[in-house]
Amino acid sequence: MEQRGSKSLRKLSELHRQHSGLINIMPLQTGSLLTEAAKKALIEFGDGYSVCDFCSGTLCDISNPPIREFVHELLPQFLGCEVATVTHGAREAIFMLMHSLTKPGDSIIVDGTRHYTTIVSAERAGLNVIEVPHSGYPEFKTDVNDYASLIEKHNPKLILLTYPDGNYGNIADARRLGEIAQEYAVPYIINGAYSVGRMPISMAGIGADFIVGSGHKSMASAGPCGVLGMKKKWEEIVLRRSKTYPKKEVELLGCTLRGTPLLTLMASFPQVQERVNYWEEQVTKAQWFSVKLEELGFKQLGEKPHKHDLLYFETPMLYDISQRVRERGYFLHKELKERGIWGPQPGVTKSFKLSTFAADREQLEFVVASFKAILNKYS
Amino acid sequence: MEQRGSKSLRKLSELHRQHSGLINIMPLQTGSLLTEAAKKALIEFGDGYSVCDFCSGTLCDISNPPIREFVHELLPQFLGCEVATVTHGAREAIFMLMHSLTKPGDSIIVDGTRHYTTIVSAERAGLNVIEVPHSGYPEFKTDVNDYASLIEKHNPKLILLTYPDGNYGNIADARRLGEIAQEYAVPYIINGAYSVGRMPISMAGIGADFIVGSGHKSMASAGPCGVLGMKKKWEEIVLRRSKTYPKKEVELLGCTLRGTPLLTLMASFPQVQERVNYWEEQVTKAQWFSVKLEELGFKQLGEKPHKHDLLYFETPMLYDISQRVRERGYFLHKELKERGIWGPQPGVTKSFKLSTFAADREQLEFVVASFKAILNKYS
Repeated sequence: MEQRGSKSLRKLSELHRQHSGLINIMPLQTGSLLTEAAKKALIEFGDGYSVCDFCSGTLCDISNPPIREFVHELLPQFLGCEVATVTHGAREAIFMLMHSLTKPGDSIIVDGTRHYTTIVSAERAGLNVIEVPHSGYPEFKTDVNDYASLIEKHNPKLILLTYPDGNYGNIADARRLGEIAQEYAVPYIINGAYSVGRMPISMAGIGADFIVGSGHKSMASAGPCGVLGMKKKWEEIVLRRSKTYPKKEVELLGCTLRGTPLLTLMASFPQVQERVNYWEEQVTKAQWFSVKLEELGFKQLGEKPHKHDLLYFETPMLYDISQRVRERGYFLHKELKERGIWGPQPGVTKSFKLSTFAADREQLEFVVASFKAILNKYS
Repeated sequence: MEQRGSKSLRKLSELHRQHSGLINIMPLQTGSLLTEAAKKALIEFGDGYSVCDFCSGTLCDISNPPIREFVHELLPQFLGCEVATVTHGAREAIFMLMHSLTKPGDSIIVDGTRHYTTIVSAERAGLNVIEVPHSGYPEFKTDVNDYASLIEKHNPKLILLTYPDGNYGNIADARRLGEIAQEYAVPYIINGAYSVGRMPISMAGIGADFIVGSGHKSMASAGPCGVLGMKKKWEEIVLRRSKTYPKKEVELLGCTLRGTPLLTLMASFPQVQERVNYWEEQVTKAQWFSVKLEELGFKQLGEKPHKHDLLYFETPMLYDISQRVRERGYFLHKELKERGIWGPQPGVTKSFKLSTFAADREQLEFVVASFKAILNKYS
């Protein structure tokens, strides 16, 4: 036991990732590779509570480092909202909204391609969730007009759209849903975990009441961290202050992101704000990549032509190979890693998500060539 | 406006702390200075979601990096509990307990010296809070026997003790309260934000049901992060799984600490586990420091002789100086900073908290000499 303990402790002192420097096409990670500025901020503000050097009671009002300016000026402008704050992540923002705007037993309506955390947040808040059906295989599209009849039927306290969804990367008509939300006067949340920080998006332009983003998914930040924007009229409910401690917001438990990830979010922000301007190039790259992989016999699910870097492929021929090689499903991960590519998780071969956001055209050519070589090797 | 925006953005790309390398006696920060191993982990796992390279659905079950072993083996042993998990911080753990074990309108009993986040968490959970009165000036001690009659009167769903409290650093008789909790069969939370990682503490030894710790306050970690330990019998309530997603814990919204701070917590753990063995030396050092500052005319509030590195001083002579110098209250911060000391926040002179945890005896001698020199300079 002592032996075991010592070994464990040694292991903890030497934590390493196995794939620094690989071509990264893993969807969770391509939007959160740190900028050089964020890497410096990470080290500078590594010590616990170093962000609080000059705090006078409210995290988002700290002016050194310039959190106040970031949260109250730059972020609202970027999100197209009136009031913004920072959170531990997109899911924590969504729970916060549910917890402050609903009561247990209330109903909410969400897209059928919502992230699992939408369901778990609703479960934590005791809510009844109605899902808008998607179009099914192979596109899995959401027609936002389907929200209307469900709103009439269920009188929801909130509606939510995942934009894009995190599985197929489909971009639903968020603006049309904004019209519907306004028509029925129901508060509308955009879950932009895969859009805020990757592509241009404006809460006001969409006509939503709330917008949620993820620092560690799409804003070049260390995890966990997120952003939340809203219309001013919701501030006094969602960001209500404690009766006992007037500087402290109840839903935030005083302060949320009191540490390192916030500083990486801020340090990366200038580049993140800039990169969304090149979104069309990202979309063109994703479409080109999809065509190339389909030429190999992979089948892209979701919308075509695709409008996002997040792509889902069915790859039955890779699965077939896994059935007859010694490494079984692990052969693909091994083959890709040997070629310097970090993509599908170990063991996965039948279908998987990839993201073209972080890799350039040349790297993606190499990815295509690698898949081709792997198919040839085992054919 | 454009000008303003560009300046703001430049500022974000160059975030600096103003006092690296100073002698740190600021209580929020002395327990969370990163170890060298944690600094390395910070860089290695800086990119968002890099902790999830090999995730198969549950953060605390990831074996590479060895989160599973840390959370399910090392942490329970360290906390003296049966089941452990990681959280965004102590306050988030406390809210999670309140949210899963109470209903709005329920009562809880807490010490009168509880942290503000206990009150804000209870407000978020809709609870009625009864505070056990402390002994008042100058000691502010809690007699845990006072919980008994309040338990009889209010039939609380939870009781909580802050151990030590975060203002005076008083160590109440937590073990006696464990007996009382068992006698009345009421779940008992130890808020160990200033004890777990600094001093030896065992949930089982105390007889508590839950123990909460703070990575960024006392476990040499980047913020925000925390730990939560409990008796096995509470696992199926507090860590209940989603009905739709059986791998996901509802109160954790699936995963909490999905990022960098967790890796610093793990990397520092071997040294944190070791350092609690030297707690007696820490206490002796704090007592010596308190005597030295009292010789200068400062008055230490809270228990005497003191049993923790967190010390509260009344310093009326510094306040008197602030009334007649040009810099007003800011003179003290400036004088200390010029001498290489990071302590009371800018503007504070009348009374303040200090912590002797991170500074060695020689550095503290220098702090004492500096206070003396400052008093002389303005006398």
